[in-house]
Amino acid sequence: MTTRLSRAQTWLQDRQVEAMSIEEPVDIAYFTNLTLSMGKLLMFPKSPWKLFVDGRYLEAVREVYPTHVEPLDRWEESVKSLSCLGVDGALLSWETVSSYQMLTRVISFPSWSMPFRQIKDREEVVKLRRAAKLTLEGIQWSMGRLQEGMSERDLAWIFEVFCRERGGEQLSFSPIVAFGKNSAYPHYRPSKDVTWRRGQIVLIDAGVVIEGYAGDLTRCFHVPDPLRQLEQWVYQAGKQALAHVKAGALVKEIDQAAREVFRKEGVESSFLHSLGHGIGLDVHELPRISSKKESGDVRLQEGMVVTIEPGLYREGLGGVRLEEMVLVTKTGYEPFTGLFV
Amino acid sequence: MTTRLSRAQTWLQDRQVEAMSIEEPVDIAYFTNLTLSMGKLLMFPKSPWKLFVDGRYLEAVREVYPTHVEPLDRWEESVKSLSCLGVDGALLSWETVSSYQMLTRVISFPSWSMPFRQIKDREEVVKLRRAAKLTLEGIQWSMGRLQEGMSERDLAWIFEVFCRERGGEQLSFSPIVAFGKNSAYPHYRPSKDVTWRRGQIVLIDAGVVIEGYAGDLTRCFHVPDPLRQLEQWVYQAGKQALAHVKAGALVKEIDQAAREVFRKEGVESSFLHSLGHGIGLDVHELPRISSKKESGDVRLQEGMVVTIEPGLYREGLGGVRLEEMVLVTKTGYEPFTGLFV
Repeated sequence: MTTRLSRAQTWLQDRQVEAMSIEEPVDIAYFTNLTLSMGKLLMFPKSPWKLFVDGRYLEAVREVYPTHVEPLDRWEESVKSLSCLGVDGALLSWETVSSYQMLTRVISFPSWSMPFRQIKDREEVVKLRRAAKLTLEGIQWSMGRLQEGMSERDLAWIFEVFCRERGGEQLSFSPIVAFGKNSAYPHYRPSKDVTWRRGQIVLIDAGVVIEGYAGDLTRCFHVPDPLRQLEQWVYQAGKQALAHVKAGALVKEIDQAAREVFRKEGVESSFLHSLGHGIGLDVHELPRISSKKESGDVRLQEGMVVTIEPGLYREGLGGVRLEEMVLVTKTGYEPFTGLFV
Repeated sequence: MTTRLSRAQTWLQDRQVEAMSIEEPVDIAYFTNLTLSMGKLLMFPKSPWKLFVDGRYLEAVREVYPTHVEPLDRWEESVKSLSCLGVDGALLSWETVSSYQMLTRVISFPSWSMPFRQIKDREEVVKLRRAAKLTLEGIQWSMGRLQEGMSERDLAWIFEVFCRERGGEQLSFSPIVAFGKNSAYPHYRPSKDVTWRRGQIVLIDAGVVIEGYAGDLTRCFHVPDPLRQLEQWVYQAGKQALAHVKAGALVKEIDQAAREVFRKEGVESSFLHSLGHGIGLDVHELPRISSKKESGDVRLQEGMVVTIEPGLYREGLGGVRLEEMVLVTKTGYEPFTGLFV
């Protein structure tokens, strides 16, 4: 926690602001370990931060941080006393920032916390591993309960109940459960009217949140013959991509390693999305694992946790996607669930 | 749907903008009946609206509204062609509105849709009634499963599973389940470490969403002797408040009717929040049922759906809150669950 704070404070020292306002609950949790639905944290380049909360949280926060807490009605006065305030204008509303501009000069640093949050410390990696582990258990449990006539929505619900009853706070995102040709749509939403019959592929892309940290895995089951070849290529693509994962690697090299497998087989155009993404308190964090101009030249760093999720899709037939979560290390990576190895 | 649109268009005719941008999924659903996770709707004072969506939704929207849909990458060009764009600056981020300002002149109308959404049409009332009914069933079901040693969090989960398995899309908010003295905190969050033993009050404040519309009810069970008197007063306060509910009544009269019951008993200071709120696609909508200066002079209108939720709280002992949802009519109200009658 201290390291997280001091890295952000160092960053802040080179900005032209006297303090940074942090209001996104996930960012507040990142810097303080407090789970609040609402609060405003003022971070200073050198002096200790202050957290402004309403009556609901005043006592609870005071117990953990006796000298850092302020009642929310002291916020305006504190902002007024600053010569210049930094905000995350991608997260705060237009009206909120406009109201701050009545109090002092404001500079927006959109998504400023994302570069910090992409490097995970040991405590975060433990939580992400647990989230991945419970996600995998949930997928396996629900597949054990699959029966002919069961709907996609029912199977998604079996996954959710399992994960929630075993300590998952919530799902990382609305799960994708697709039967048969519905698996051809990467962003498919499960239907209560589509039921499973033997011979249909089952694609599950889902995740659960443990102590704030998100899991995100994809698996395919009952892959029918016409999709077996795709599954092989997807598996090879994942394996090739992982072979390039280590601190210092360019993300576009990793994306290209997967794409190269598909190119050789002449199916590159059936890979419809980027290869992966950082994951943490949000299910989509930095870095993007892609070859795109604006993000491809980013280098992996030790402590990043990323997903690798190649997929191939054939409209009218179905699709196959496989997704793993890995920790980037100096010499390679540590897989969370042992896929692609 | 047509009425909802035409009322908003009439409002727009008196504003100095050529079009209004609507981007909140709940607002898009209100005007189009479409459930999208992302989209931008341009509403014009006189000509038909246009909905800009990405590849995921293009076909699905085209099937329902063949002439209204545009690909998202045409958004900038369309905004550029306007002399002035209206936005809801309470919902859009600072960065988003700033990017629009690069394209044209922008005026913010914060929370502009709330006054429209507070009057419910027949279709909305049906959905809200169903949400209330399922919420009540869920509360009763979970109470039937309560056992000594069960935690607050477990009881909340039993409620959620029941509602979700019977068609509830999600919960309206994180449910409040409080045992014993925890019921004294109106915004309490259920704990997995607090277990129930005979003699303790059980307060449940929860709701489920049906076709987008939120339920919100509170009930108390196993009220022990020291809290019985509070329960009587809370019940009387609800009854008195409802006696004043009808189209044309000032919301402060309703709040005062409840407060008067508490004042006579000398316990007004133990009523820690406002009496109620409008409810619909969001769990908190207009009007506020309160005596506050800024909102007390609002008059109820036919078609509003509001909660009435008096409560009395004694720290160290416990609290009692009872909450009903009612439809405001010309001559009075229609209760959704028959509490306070």
